[in-house]
Amino acid sequence: MTIQHDPAIRGFASDNYSGIHPEVLAAIATANDGHQGAYGSDAYTARLQEVVRSHFGERAEAFPVFNGTGANVTGLQSMLPRWGAVIAATTAHINVDEGGAPEKIGGFKLLTVPTDDGKLTPELIDREAWGWGDEHRAQPLVVSITQSTELGTLYTADEIRTIADHAHERGMKLHLDGARLSNAAAALDLPLAAFTTDAGVDVLSFGGTKNGAMLGEAVVVLNPEASDGLIYSRKFNMQLSSKMRFVSAQLIALLEGDLWLRNARHANAMAARLRGEIEQGIASGSITGVAFTQPTQSNGVFATLPDGVADALRESFRFYDWDAARNEVRWMCSFDTHEDDVDAFVTELARLTA
Amino acid sequence: MTIQHDPAIRGFASDNYSGIHPEVLAAIATANDGHQGAYGSDAYTARLQEVVRSHFGERAEAFPVFNGTGANVTGLQSMLPRWGAVIAATTAHINVDEGGAPEKIGGFKLLTVPTDDGKLTPELIDREAWGWGDEHRAQPLVVSITQSTELGTLYTADEIRTIADHAHERGMKLHLDGARLSNAAAALDLPLAAFTTDAGVDVLSFGGTKNGAMLGEAVVVLNPEASDGLIYSRKFNMQLSSKMRFVSAQLIALLEGDLWLRNARHANAMAARLRGEIEQGIASGSITGVAFTQPTQSNGVFATLPDGVADALRESFRFYDWDAARNEVRWMCSFDTHEDDVDAFVTELARLTA
Amino acid sequence: MTIQHDPAIRGFASDNYSGIHPEVLAAIATANDGHQGAYGSDAYTARLQEVVRSHFGERAEAFPVFNGTGANVTGLQSMLPRWGAVIAATTAHINVDEGGAPEKIGGFKLLTVPTDDGKLTPELIDREAWGWGDEHRAQPLVVSITQSTELGTLYTADEIRTIADHAHERGMKLHLDGARLSNAAAALDLPLAAFTTDAGVDVLSFGGTKNGAMLGEAVVVLNPEASDGLIYSRKFNMQLSSKMRFVSAQLIALLEGDLWLRNARHANAMAARLRGEIEQGIASGSITGVAFTQPTQSNGVFATLPDGVADALRESFRFYDWDAARNEVRWMCSFDTHEDDVDAFVTELARLTA
Amino acid sequence: MTIQHDPAIRGFASDNYSGIHPEVLAAIATANDGHQGAYGSDAYTARLQEVVRSHFGERAEAFPVFNGTGANVTGLQSMLPRWGAVIAATTAHINVDEGGAPEKIGGFKLLTVPTDDGKLTPELIDREAWGWGDEHRAQPLVVSITQSTELGTLYTADEIRTIADHAHERGMKLHLDGARLSNAAAALDLPLAAFTTDAGVDVLSFGGTKNGAMLGEAVVVLNPEASDGLIYSRKFNMQLSSKMRFVSAQLIALLEGDLWLRNARHANAMAARLRGEIEQGIASGSITGVAFTQPTQSNGVFATLPDGVADALRESFRFYDWDAARNEVRWMCSFDTHEDDVDAFVTELARLTA
Repeated sequence: MTIQHDPAIRGFASDNYSGIHPEVLAAIATANDGHQGAYGSDAYTARLQEVVRSHFGERAEAFPVFNGTGANVTGLQSMLPRWGAVIAATTAHINVDEGGAPEKIGGFKLLTVPTDDGKLTPELIDREAWGWGDEHRAQPLVVSITQSTELGTLYTADEIRTIADHAHERGMKLHLDGARLSNAAAALDLPLAAFTTDAGVDVLSFGGTKNGAMLGEAVVVLNPEASDGLIYSRKFNMQLSSKMRFVSAQLIALLEGDLWLRNARHANAMAARLRGEIEQGIASGSITGVAFTQPTQSNGVFATLPDGVADALRESFRFYDWDAARNEVRWMCSFDTHEDDVDAFVTELARLTA
Repeated sequence: MTIQHDPAIRGFASDNYSGIHPEVLAAIATANDGHQGAYGSDAYTARLQEVVRSHFGERAEAFPVFNGTGANVTGLQSMLPRWGAVIAATTAHINVDEGGAPEKIGGFKLLTVPTDDGKLTPELIDREAWGWGDEHRAQPLVVSITQSTELGTLYTADEIRTIADHAHERGMKLHLDGARLSNAAAALDLPLAAFTTDAGVDVLSFGGTKNGAMLGEAVVVLNPEASDGLIYSRKFNMQLSSKMRFVSAQLIALLEGDLWLRNARHANAMAARLRGEIEQGIASGSITGVAFTQPTQSNGVFATLPDGVADALRESFRFYDWDAARNEVRWMCSFDTHEDDVDAFVTELARLTA
Repeated sequence: MTIQHDPAIRGFASDNYSGIHPEVLAAIATANDGHQGAYGSDAYTARLQEVVRSHFGERAEAFPVFNGTGANVTGLQSMLPRWGAVIAATTAHINVDEGGAPEKIGGFKLLTVPTDDGKLTPELIDREAWGWGDEHRAQPLVVSITQSTELGTLYTADEIRTIADHAHERGMKLHLDGARLSNAAAALDLPLAAFTTDAGVDVLSFGGTKNGAMLGEAVVVLNPEASDGLIYSRKFNMQLSSKMRFVSAQLIALLEGDLWLRNARHANAMAARLRGEIEQGIASGSITGVAFTQPTQSNGVFATLPDGVADALRESFRFYDWDAARNEVRWMCSFDTHEDDVDAFVTELARLTA
Repeated sequence: MTIQHDPAIRGFASDNYSGIHPEVLAAIATANDGHQGAYGSDAYTARLQEVVRSHFGERAEAFPVFNGTGANVTGLQSMLPRWGAVIAATTAHINVDEGGAPEKIGGFKLLTVPTDDGKLTPELIDREAWGWGDEHRAQPLVVSITQSTELGTLYTADEIRTIADHAHERGMKLHLDGARLSNAAAALDLPLAAFTTDAGVDVLSFGGTKNGAMLGEAVVVLNPEASDGLIYSRKFNMQLSSKMRFVSAQLIALLEGDLWLRNARHANAMAARLRGEIEQGIASGSITGVAFTQPTQSNGVFATLPDGVADALRESFRFYDWDAARNEVRWMCSFDTHEDDVDAFVTELARLTA
């Protein structure tokens, strides 16, 4: 197969526009050759369990799946009876980016709450945490939070613990969408368990794809009492890989050493650099009309731009509108973002807004 | 990541016990680096369309997905209204190996017909092809066949054409589960279109995984009038890869040249060798008590063994029981099966049954 | 509203072609006027529980629903996790007459077994009772039988007990579709509990509609450990009546005294009369070419007719083909079938076949 | 069956706490006796079509179902592909009172918009009417409004026409939940078609239960191009009555003459009386601390009460909290509400708040 793309081009569209980290690709090659049991009965999936337990504690169990939607829907479904509903922020990926899979495939209702920063609080949860025992209401039995959030913001470990306690006291479980869990750990400078297992999270989605994998996520069950039937639902939800060794090998490559952390730290640092340079430009007057709409706590930067600037900037760099109605854009950094990419981007932004 | 397995060990359990063909792995590496649009807006997925059209005709469109169950369920669902049912052989993978995903996720009923050899015929189809307009009956609107079948048998191009005509005359569409489509083409010595597009198949699943890919299948729509909404259903069925370039690259690597055919021919040849050597052994008396239960037309061999032989043989080689009640086993060959593997296997079988 | 039909015409098409027994209609009127709590918080639904417990034992709980499909699907779903499957006879109503609702709405797979007489046995169950723990197989966790069966045949209490023990020993539950449970009790001359609660049935559908109600069935949970969440699933399955007092009143009218039994006995007696008169006609030679295909154990008679006779007979009496390919028809008797109806029908049959 | 309740007691809890209007009960009796084709092949369901067309126009077709949730979910599902979503007010019955059936059974996502008065507008619709062609977003293809709304408010015919045009211009269809459609017609003093068929509504739910029926609603298709497969989906959604003549007869009884209108006018008048008397009490100072939270445009009155008054009042009259957090209650009037009921209620309210 001949190359079809220019491998020197990188943008700020999404952390899933990036490719495979070389160490991950090497792990795929290492796991190759010979025969291994299909559907998870292989040495790599077994090894992955050890690695996951080293991060998330002895009760943790990982179920590798294909993608983030698969991880979220399968994990959440395993926490819920058929009559269940999930409380989530309006901006949650499960609500806005999964094509209705939670409702259509998971079979659960989403009870959504608007937030300023993508973060739930006990008070926000309580807007939908009611009506247990009322058959006319889909029963709110799980709270789902995202860490880091879809808006690039972070929960502290204490905030998650408070939410977990709040949920548990009301008979609800806590799910965490960790498509960017590594970025959160890097930003918080905490072990993965500190703000998940130790903070009361019951089940989470661990994201490999945005952290340098080719593809591969895992439903990680931290509290075995909170999840049921994953072995079956992963299959009927069409998330069971036959040659699973290659999904597991990628997750091992990330999590066995510190690759997950290096990649996340780098992406976060690039976002911080991007924000810092723009702030400098604003301060110096070389950049005008740009305002940030969220704190930059992990690997995403959200800002509003003057009219026309987004499209002009996109002639050189790919990125997405976040809220086109108010000229808000999102710039995502990745494990492979270069300092030069950031610098060139800011230079162009300055040229367009000066 | 350190190696966890012995890459020299191979068995006859399944073609998905094998790894990645080196040319496929190389294609993944080629597609790496730089940024590419996610979710299919990349150069490799575009190129894949050209490659698929070169095999399946100008109207063909490929939708890469993760696995075979995902391909079958998503493809079939796109052919059916909510009130639809699918006629299939009792032995069909969609009936026995997909954890109920067709019913639970696809939302369609399976109307199954027992067969001797895994192959439907017009007469067998007619056992369930009735009741249109009767609201009490899930409406039979699609016939699904598997090529090569789960029993290692083959439809001729004429047989498929006859089934397609039969289905179409009754207002039904024809779906083909092609998890081993390449093996069929190799065995029939026909181009892929000759027994699919040209024979009246409307939608098929093309299998990459069992043909040497790491993972990756495609729903291939041959008749655009026969399928609706795949762009959406692939997403909500949780089969949409973000870094799709790496799935598409694998399929290109197989289909652009003749790798798909080389791999399939090799696997078929190894099955033929396996059968041939055992037949010789039986003829010469060095192997006793072994009988074949299906013709060996592609890469699988089905046989009954004397009591106790299967388990003794499995101490050296992995393979599965097919029908334990009658000592029937299945031996699958793969793109990476060595002649030595076959020879050693037959030697051991002879030792155990002499 | 003016009358639109001829209330003197009755046929043998189905027991749901009949109307409302006068005592049931009177019960609806008795429950009328004034306000009562909606959705089951009314005095009649409370009273129904007492009546149901008097028949089915102190642990029984009834959940009134609208129709038989609703009762079966909601009851079965409450017995199953999302990964479950139900073993049933191929002829089961849930398999052939519910438009795919078990799969599409219930979300469970049916594992069906052909039978001669519509009755499962341990041996027949075992054809599908396997594969627990195998994620590729929808898990067989419930056996569903119909009493009296769709073919008019009966299980003895001992046969049901044997099936219940067989199922329970294998970790499966036993469901009973009792759309015609009253006919079975009448035919067996047993209390309802004798072949349900006392025989190990876990959950059943009790049919009111075919026994003289306007509409109204109940999911009756005999073993509370075997069912979960019915209060919620009845609602989201759209089976929760707001003015439930009128559904419950009908069931009370049937079950409080012996109306259920009188109606069932009468229907059975009319079927016996029909069969007896035809047998006499055959013996005497006044009827020729007619053969019975099932024993007549409750209120249905199954027979094959000479070519053309079915359509000629239908000019005077409505009834259905059962298997048109072999001229098999079904004649159903109802609580309101008159002896004169039977006699006139047999006279016409004799005229057509003499 | 002996009477279990006091038929002299009426409250203000819900219009479905009432019983059956005598003319509806008489219609059930008229349709009784003799045999009629099941599942809708009866003379009453045929007659119903004529009656419905006389109200809703020559293209209208009615599909009788059991209850309001069944009507809404089945109707909406028939308007949507599997990838569809429905835009509705946050307060819509489909969002808050149907136990998640729209998502769990209908398989569609709800895109909800907060409103002040339960009424959508083009501007409110546009908050969710975007993203067509984006596979990550469940596709907004239907707008659903309720008339009269869950808050007792009304759309004018012009407002509905404006919404219909707005939806249609964007490729969306318009659904109307008419559980209280008769109340709306009575309040608007318009024929039913004037604000439905003639205003561009595509499919509606017509409510019989709250208008004096025992049970029975109809999905009424006004625009046959906007709905598909209802004959099948009504069955698999478990909404197909076998003895349908009795559901149809009730709807005929309401709609053939002016019973629907008399009942609705009476319920509306009682709500107006209730509001008027309370307003007088407030004006005269005999009632204090009571404030209305919505206009009273049909048969419901919404008000806030001083602390403790709601519970004290409920010792004499049943009614529901609407928003307990702010002491808001809902008082519903019905076809059978007496003037004396209203007067006694206001007298008690005055006693408690004076």
